[in-house]
Amino acid sequence: DLSFDPKEHQHLRYNPLRDSWVLVSAHRMKRPWAGQVEKPPEEHIPRYDPRNPLCPGNTRANGEVNPSYDSTFVFENDFPALQSDAPDPGPDQHPLFQSKAARGVCKVMCFHPWSDVTLPLMKKEEVVKVIDKWAELLDELGATYPWVQIFENKGAMMGCSNPHPHCQVWASNFLPNEPALSDRCQRAYYEKHGEPLLVQYAKQEAEKKERVVVENSDWLVVVPYWATWPYQTLLLPQRHVLRINELTAGERESLAAIMKQLLTKYDNLFEISFPYSMGWHGAPTGLHLKEDNSHWQLHAHYYPPLLRSATVKKFMVGYEMLAQEQRDLTPEQAAQKLRSLPEDHYKTRES
Amino acid sequence: DLSFDPKEHQHLRYNPLRDSWVLVSAHRMKRPWAGQVEKPPEEHIPRYDPRNPLCPGNTRANGEVNPSYDSTFVFENDFPALQSDAPDPGPDQHPLFQSKAARGVCKVMCFHPWSDVTLPLMKKEEVVKVIDKWAELLDELGATYPWVQIFENKGAMMGCSNPHPHCQVWASNFLPNEPALSDRCQRAYYEKHGEPLLVQYAKQEAEKKERVVVENSDWLVVVPYWATWPYQTLLLPQRHVLRINELTAGERESLAAIMKQLLTKYDNLFEISFPYSMGWHGAPTGLHLKEDNSHWQLHAHYYPPLLRSATVKKFMVGYEMLAQEQRDLTPEQAAQKLRSLPEDHYKTRES
Ligand SMILES: O=P(O)(O)O[C@H]1O[C@H](CO)[C@@H](O)[C@H](O)[C@H]1O
Ligand SMILES: O=P(O)(O)O[C@H]1O[C@H](CO)[C@@H](O)[C@H](O)[C@H]1O
Repeated sequence: DLSFDPKEHQHLRYNPLRDSWVLVSAHRMKRPWAGQVEKPPEEHIPRYDPRNPLCPGNTRANGEVNPSYDSTFVFENDFPALQSDAPDPGPDQHPLFQSKAARGVCKVMCFHPWSDVTLPLMKKEEVVKVIDKWAELLDELGATYPWVQIFENKGAMMGCSNPHPHCQVWASNFLPNEPALSDRCQRAYYEKHGEPLLVQYAKQEAEKKERVVVENSDWLVVVPYWATWPYQTLLLPQRHVLRINELTAGERESLAAIMKQLLTKYDNLFEISFPYSMGWHGAPTGLHLKEDNSHWQLHAHYYPPLLRSATVKKFMVGYEMLAQEQRDLTPEQAAQKLRSLPEDHYKTRES
Repeated sequence: DLSFDPKEHQHLRYNPLRDSWVLVSAHRMKRPWAGQVEKPPEEHIPRYDPRNPLCPGNTRANGEVNPSYDSTFVFENDFPALQSDAPDPGPDQHPLFQSKAARGVCKVMCFHPWSDVTLPLMKKEEVVKVIDKWAELLDELGATYPWVQIFENKGAMMGCSNPHPHCQVWASNFLPNEPALSDRCQRAYYEKHGEPLLVQYAKQEAEKKERVVVENSDWLVVVPYWATWPYQTLLLPQRHVLRINELTAGERESLAAIMKQLLTKYDNLFEISFPYSMGWHGAPTGLHLKEDNSHWQLHAHYYPPLLRSATVKKFMVGYEMLAQEQRDLTPEQAAQKLRSLPEDHYKTRES
């Protein structure tokens, strides 16, 4: 009988945050790739572009003029998917044709006045300002909205249509699918095991080490055991924290430091500005602020699309859309690769 | 008070097959697009390419020579994600680190000996042969495997690395996430309402008409009420059928006819060979053949990525990955658009 080797033998792994499975078929990396090749990310972006609506002092689509900001800058999305005053579709007619009111607000947040920097290339103090602003927006929007989704789409490959460093914050009057699922899973785990799922998970990973990418005394970054995207990571606090606005000043500094470390490694992987979508998940807000949410643990997900090189991504298509997600290298291989990369950014390295 | 208009006012719609919601924000179509532009699909593909491993008579990666086939041709994937003999990862250690054995088989099926045709451009009798082969493969693999996923990734944009018309069939010793979820939802609906979910749904849609794209006496194609992809469709039988191998000869002919109609409209939408992932879902097989699966209804999902033009797709990124899927036009608008397109293919039209 063959003995099991996760790098050679396909198997399923369980994602306890989504109550689902991923098919790990690491031997698939051996197949040649004759398919689509992406345009590598644009490497020469001007610091200031008079036509870019996100730059300081420029005029946006709705005629508003941006201030000459010198740190972060937040404004309302000019084409929001969620508006605060949409009327109610009315009572449901039939169980197969159900609709519900959706209300909310969509904000855009520039990280920096310059278009030619990204988080890993910004100073640590500048990244702390981004974290402070995230916490502030959670305070403000979370006072009424049950869910505030902070997320960053980075790179044209991830549908980002503006190279200026920025993220988005969409707050809604409903708990969206993903956090609702995560809430359910974390709650069930807590009830059964008496400790929050991700608190227990971080402890185990910090001991096992094989999936750790970077860590410091407050934070841990791992390629989760159940990762679906090739270089997906999970950023976790080392203590139990419900929401981003509960982080201490020290934790914000160490968060800025570990984000810079992780994102530098990402950029160094294929020596390009690494595309990804990332976002924060923490305990729900609004009316949920009054509930016991001890089952929650704050965390950020990073979902980068690239698989083989700067121009070949993983396609989550046919089998993945219709049956189940499948990955082509083990999470341990991905973690090992990221861990081995230098901590200084390829762009600032002396040659 | 404003009165509700689904084209102007964002709202949520419920997907009863996945027990989840989609955010419909049709006013987002107004936003200008300055983001990534895709390469349009290659329009000049040679009928026979001596280097293409899928063409008749050519040698594949593993040294096998294809027969000079003149209809469909099935072979085992040379780089399978599922192999029949992977060893078991062993008993689970911890609830957060669960793995399971995954075994199966991956087949590739060429639709036609020519590389320069696609299903809408094939003769109806040739498409019937494809359907017959799907049924045969379900018979064969479904005898032992609980799930047989028939799917087609079409176009480089959907990760397809070979322009020759083909699909894949992956059979597994487990019920993957998507069919498991769909099974749960259909079962619960059946228990509550005494009729299969999709049988009831097809009847309602056939009456309402507003989301119907094409129909004949055996089949119905709609943009489902809960569609996430811009031009997503659902292909449904008009009678209750559990699996594709139960279709009568007449139903296979009318299925070939409606597939050609739908795919011609898809190609006519932007006058390109329209990319998509599609696949069949029917009652599970293997040990499940002995169970009562009356809650199931056979259906095919079509998931096409394009949104605005031949080169601008919908990005399911940040908010979609972390919170909830969002669409930029209503399903009724998409259905109306597809309905209005000509039924003769732009490539065969006399000018
Ligand atoms: O098997 P193929 O066609 O090489 O690969 C394609 O389809 C698979 C199944 O949907 C995906 O996992 C791959 O990412 C995609 O590139
Ligand atoms: O709002 P943006 O940046 O124009 O749009 C981008 O992010 C949104 C939220 O993830 C997605 O719905 C869009 O498909 C994507 O292009």
